[in-house]
Amino acid sequence: MKQLLVGVILLIGVQALGQRKTAREYGVKIGVMKPGTLNAITDVAGVKVGQVTINVGDSVRTGVTAILPHEGNIFQRKVPAAVFVGNGFGKLAGTTQVNELGNLETPIVLTNTLAVPVGMNAVIEHSLKQKGNEAAQSVNAVVGETNDSWLNDIRGMHVKTEHVLTAIRQARSGVVEQGNVGAGNGTVCFGWKGGIGTSSRKLPADLGGYTVGVLVQTNFGGNLVIDGVQVGEALQKFSFSNSLLNNVDGSCMIIVATDAPLDARNLQRLAKRAFMGLAKTGGIASNGSGDYVIAFSTFESNFISHDPTDRIQPLQVLHNDVVSPLFMAAIEATEEAIINSLFKATTSKGYKGHEVKELPLNDVLPLLKK
Amino acid sequence: MKQLLVGVILLIGVQALGQRKTAREYGVKIGVMKPGTLNAITDVAGVKVGQVTINVGDSVRTGVTAILPHEGNIFQRKVPAAVFVGNGFGKLAGTTQVNELGNLETPIVLTNTLAVPVGMNAVIEHSLKQKGNEAAQSVNAVVGETNDSWLNDIRGMHVKTEHVLTAIRQARSGVVEQGNVGAGNGTVCFGWKGGIGTSSRKLPADLGGYTVGVLVQTNFGGNLVIDGVQVGEALQKFSFSNSLLNNVDGSCMIIVATDAPLDARNLQRLAKRAFMGLAKTGGIASNGSGDYVIAFSTFESNFISHDPTDRIQPLQVLHNDVVSPLFMAAIEATEEAIINSLFKATTSKGYKGHEVKELPLNDVLPLLKK
Amino acid sequence: MKQLLVGVILLIGVQALGQRKTAREYGVKIGVMKPGTLNAITDVAGVKVGQVTINVGDSVRTGVTAILPHEGNIFQRKVPAAVFVGNGFGKLAGTTQVNELGNLETPIVLTNTLAVPVGMNAVIEHSLKQKGNEAAQSVNAVVGETNDSWLNDIRGMHVKTEHVLTAIRQARSGVVEQGNVGAGNGTVCFGWKGGIGTSSRKLPADLGGYTVGVLVQTNFGGNLVIDGVQVGEALQKFSFSNSLLNNVDGSCMIIVATDAPLDARNLQRLAKRAFMGLAKTGGIASNGSGDYVIAFSTFESNFISHDPTDRIQPLQVLHNDVVSPLFMAAIEATEEAIINSLFKATTSKGYKGHEVKELPLNDVLPLLKK
Amino acid sequence: MKQLLVGVILLIGVQALGQRKTAREYGVKIGVMKPGTLNAITDVAGVKVGQVTINVGDSVRTGVTAILPHEGNIFQRKVPAAVFVGNGFGKLAGTTQVNELGNLETPIVLTNTLAVPVGMNAVIEHSLKQKGNEAAQSVNAVVGETNDSWLNDIRGMHVKTEHVLTAIRQARSGVVEQGNVGAGNGTVCFGWKGGIGTSSRKLPADLGGYTVGVLVQTNFGGNLVIDGVQVGEALQKFSFSNSLLNNVDGSCMIIVATDAPLDARNLQRLAKRAFMGLAKTGGIASNGSGDYVIAFSTFESNFISHDPTDRIQPLQVLHNDVVSPLFMAAIEATEEAIINSLFKATTSKGYKGHEVKELPLNDVLPLLKK
Repeated sequence: MKQLLVGVILLIGVQALGQRKTAREYGVKIGVMKPGTLNAITDVAGVKVGQVTINVGDSVRTGVTAILPHEGNIFQRKVPAAVFVGNGFGKLAGTTQVNELGNLETPIVLTNTLAVPVGMNAVIEHSLKQKGNEAAQSVNAVVGETNDSWLNDIRGMHVKTEHVLTAIRQARSGVVEQGNVGAGNGTVCFGWKGGIGTSSRKLPADLGGYTVGVLVQTNFGGNLVIDGVQVGEALQKFSFSNSLLNNVDGSCMIIVATDAPLDARNLQRLAKRAFMGLAKTGGIASNGSGDYVIAFSTFESNFISHDPTDRIQPLQVLHNDVVSPLFMAAIEATEEAIINSLFKATTSKGYKGHEVKELPLNDVLPLLKK
Repeated sequence: MKQLLVGVILLIGVQALGQRKTAREYGVKIGVMKPGTLNAITDVAGVKVGQVTINVGDSVRTGVTAILPHEGNIFQRKVPAAVFVGNGFGKLAGTTQVNELGNLETPIVLTNTLAVPVGMNAVIEHSLKQKGNEAAQSVNAVVGETNDSWLNDIRGMHVKTEHVLTAIRQARSGVVEQGNVGAGNGTVCFGWKGGIGTSSRKLPADLGGYTVGVLVQTNFGGNLVIDGVQVGEALQKFSFSNSLLNNVDGSCMIIVATDAPLDARNLQRLAKRAFMGLAKTGGIASNGSGDYVIAFSTFESNFISHDPTDRIQPLQVLHNDVVSPLFMAAIEATEEAIINSLFKATTSKGYKGHEVKELPLNDVLPLLKK
Repeated sequence: MKQLLVGVILLIGVQALGQRKTAREYGVKIGVMKPGTLNAITDVAGVKVGQVTINVGDSVRTGVTAILPHEGNIFQRKVPAAVFVGNGFGKLAGTTQVNELGNLETPIVLTNTLAVPVGMNAVIEHSLKQKGNEAAQSVNAVVGETNDSWLNDIRGMHVKTEHVLTAIRQARSGVVEQGNVGAGNGTVCFGWKGGIGTSSRKLPADLGGYTVGVLVQTNFGGNLVIDGVQVGEALQKFSFSNSLLNNVDGSCMIIVATDAPLDARNLQRLAKRAFMGLAKTGGIASNGSGDYVIAFSTFESNFISHDPTDRIQPLQVLHNDVVSPLFMAAIEATEEAIINSLFKATTSKGYKGHEVKELPLNDVLPLLKK
Repeated sequence: MKQLLVGVILLIGVQALGQRKTAREYGVKIGVMKPGTLNAITDVAGVKVGQVTINVGDSVRTGVTAILPHEGNIFQRKVPAAVFVGNGFGKLAGTTQVNELGNLETPIVLTNTLAVPVGMNAVIEHSLKQKGNEAAQSVNAVVGETNDSWLNDIRGMHVKTEHVLTAIRQARSGVVEQGNVGAGNGTVCFGWKGGIGTSSRKLPADLGGYTVGVLVQTNFGGNLVIDGVQVGEALQKFSFSNSLLNNVDGSCMIIVATDAPLDARNLQRLAKRAFMGLAKTGGIASNGSGDYVIAFSTFESNFISHDPTDRIQPLQVLHNDVVSPLFMAAIEATEEAIINSLFKATTSKGYKGHEVKELPLNDVLPLLKK
């Protein structure tokens, strides 16, 4: 019954969300590089996203977003990966193993702060039960979070294992829903309603033709800048502008996918650049903001077998000297993904009657005309 | 004469109690510094340990060990802390926040690999429900693990929230049980039965008089050295000595407590020295071994209030120049704690009929006489 | 009207003095926080800057910039400090010791890439000879660099020990020269002439009243943004826009001073935020760019004695919870310091006849009016 | 004239050194793995070592040791590399770039603390002048050090560029001199005369057949353990045993070479294991000890071209799962190399009449008989 309810609300949500557009659809072109076809993380071939939005009554506003690096068995065919810790407040699970071994072996799950263990349990269950993993006894579940307690009854623990498994199961390529969906359902960004956002960049052929896709869960503060325009200042809503806005904390999870053949070391560097994209939106990585970037490569011949047959793996790896265009792409796509999360999110009312307004596009769009 | 004495004590130990003793009780004195009264982590005043051992039928051999840095509300009065990643395989939860903020706000829980989410859930529940934490919405649960799947039906998920809460609730100062208890119930170390071990060092007054206490959960491989004696080699049981012993993986969780007024930076350095203690036992931090050290200080006036009333906190901090004796103490106590886990553990039979023998003291003690 | 005024001031500036002004003097106000009196790193009391500019013939365009955290003997009274590695290309000397011990014991010297050893030698000589340091046998010289080889005959090794000693000796508080001076004499930034820049922020009293000052040596690429305006795009001069601009490498050294009582851990976090300020100017931390931030605190009672008389040092340290305004201040001051380096620098011709144009303020200022 | 003098003393030194043997030559077999033919870092094919020992009058006892990863132009054909910071006291130059780019582009030079800039200058000069590097404008000189000021007039700055260039030029494969030579000429280890030591391990064919070679410059304290025997305790000479031995500081530089195809990430892990070998000798990485490990791979097809012609480099890389035997090899070879530095070093008298005794083999060898 509860599951049914969630489903109904999700459908309603989808209809409502259709009303706002991405920044680019309004003519706001962030950066100088071209986005991919969908302007989404799913422009990186093989990447799939699944989201479950949980709205119950007037105090539950939370959810789950799952990102799968490829369609196969991720545990058996791990992908090169790295985590950059922008600001280590927060409970991202799985960090140390990703960085030690240089790979990712599960879907990435995003949810709320107190639901990280639920997310891990579900990822473990998913991995143990997956065909081919019958002998698995150790699974490095990668689960990130932001704190949605302003709009969501976070202490009520409303995210359940089934929500996470559903998000993983329903993950698909194609268009990614943005705004008040999945793990972004209850988040607040720069004082406005934040949420899930996505964007991508495709390098020109002479720079390699690679794609970089980004998905973000936005829930942080600072001084909002949209495509260079000081929107926070213009609307007089920015951190420390008055006592009400002193609490700028929250978090931002950033997922970066690329089809470029980067090894873990260069993925770590790519992840750091995504954090620079956050800076460009006016984020300040405040003390209590858990800002993390997880980057992975989908270049298939570099996938890492769980049970390698040979001692040596042949790899194809980009030279250091040619990674800079990817760095720029990650910065731009992250900046735009964050802005998209604000453009697509809509006013939400939740826990204790708290209401968070959507970014007022009527006021903002005129500011962006040059 | 000494040789004879050791033998006699051994016989008494085995015959009279059916129990095994610590290395020092057999006359094995590791290092040059003096242990504290109990030769345990609980020699650091205020530190409490609680353990729940889970044995069910013939295939469940697991458990929980909880370490509390002080008796009060840890969330409200956080302790300076740091995590050193010896080998980042493994699923230790809470690492990034401990290192970013320089403190620990929950009990430390150790359990098996797949039970980390259960442990986190329990720590979160414990913290949310604790009197005084009614407004808490973000809790950084620190939960470590090792993989006990050789003796334990780890995929059966036998650790439950209540086990963890019980371990926290029952934590007490005084003697710490060692061997096949708590989170060490199902572990294997250097091919023998490992488990929980503990030891401590107390500096002489002219070096500050501080105490360093260590507790370990041992589950790793290498080439066993006891107080300098190459036991692994003598018993022809060491990593890579033959194909059966090629799998040396596992993990070692090391908890270091001190009453010295160290800040997070020097706790990080102290933690790194504990890892050196692991090296002295012959551990090699193999690829699949999750070797982590969590260090914290119980120097009370440096505790960190969750809701500080002043902008500035006055601290008392040890100068860099005087920390080296603490480094030596951490190395020695870690080495002895690991050896104690082997001395105290007893032969165990579990999952799929696997049996792991206890360290054969009848063979080992004669090797140790000098 | 504002537009006209800016134009007039520009004309006066160029005509009357042949000198260029800082961004703020042209009415460009970056960020929302107030600068200190001088809008310079020297707004942090005690900080002194000395610069030696080396122009010889038509091919030597290099120099030295020295930053002193306080007026006393730095070796005897070290300051809490941290280094953040934005992109570890580059030869910054002294990093590991600053981060291990949490302090700085020498002036910070900036120069060109191949002159780092000369800079170190001079800093060592300065320290060994300073009254009170007669017993010193180990000095951690902190020397940063960027590569000025486009305008400067870098292989000719034109920086000498005496240049560095002079920069240290002549260091003074007060106004800081910017543009083609000191270590910024031969640098290139976003394709225009870069150099030395500085800026500061002073927090309002209710946020602590602390000052954050920044000095930069700019020599990197990307896609220039000035106060949000996409100048690089507007002037069609940005990285990867065509083959000539593919080489975006270089470096940015960022020095952050504050009088806030931050310990090394929070100085590390502050340093990371300065890197976010670089991101806001459109920098991308390209593969070959050595981007480093060195942050230190001048809060005097936290200075660290070289020969402490007591085991324990009493400290006054800011709580984590109140550092976020300092983070924002570091971001803003870094962004403005970088822009100032461009505003103040003038067209320079050097090695092999290479010429680097100054940022064309006649074109840029109209873009910046809002 | 001075050069001649140095040469003469060097020859004399060689004769004297021939009198003491390595630990293994006395029958002391550390660990369970087999050494290579020479039991030296030069067992890794292509690796060359050059040393210049500087003895002048009765107060100069210092020198230079250079390690070359291969015979070719290292700047043009860089080798995969990583630096592990055991204890970041110390002035090792070049760390951040090695770890950011994952490679080494110069010889590694070891010398005394205050001579690091001289070493860097020489490495830069060597690299700029080398045929094929005419266009080089940025060179990441890797220069490590320990403080030999007890025996050497370190403030006198007696290491000159020519000494460093000579060490590089004279580098050769084959037997490596150990003890009071090169950068180990003036060092002290565990209170005895330390110096340069080396050792190697060759894996059996079924574990890959790779070689790991280690060279150390030993200058640190703790509680000496030789092959498990508590020598420091037996001879009542260990840190903190009395006030005279309270100063345990110094440093240990460790160079690890392997022909195994490890990428930078796994070289970082290998380097960390060498630090574990230091722990096994009783080292404690005291506050003032600069303990660093530099690891590189000589697997030729993974060399990195300075000017790559293709965007992608094909690599052959060992799987994580098979690196553990290399870890054990690095631990054993480091332990033995440190012990060798003590076995080979001889009593030395230097600065201010200070005398440091050689390890008394007459007392020690009987202790080691089992």
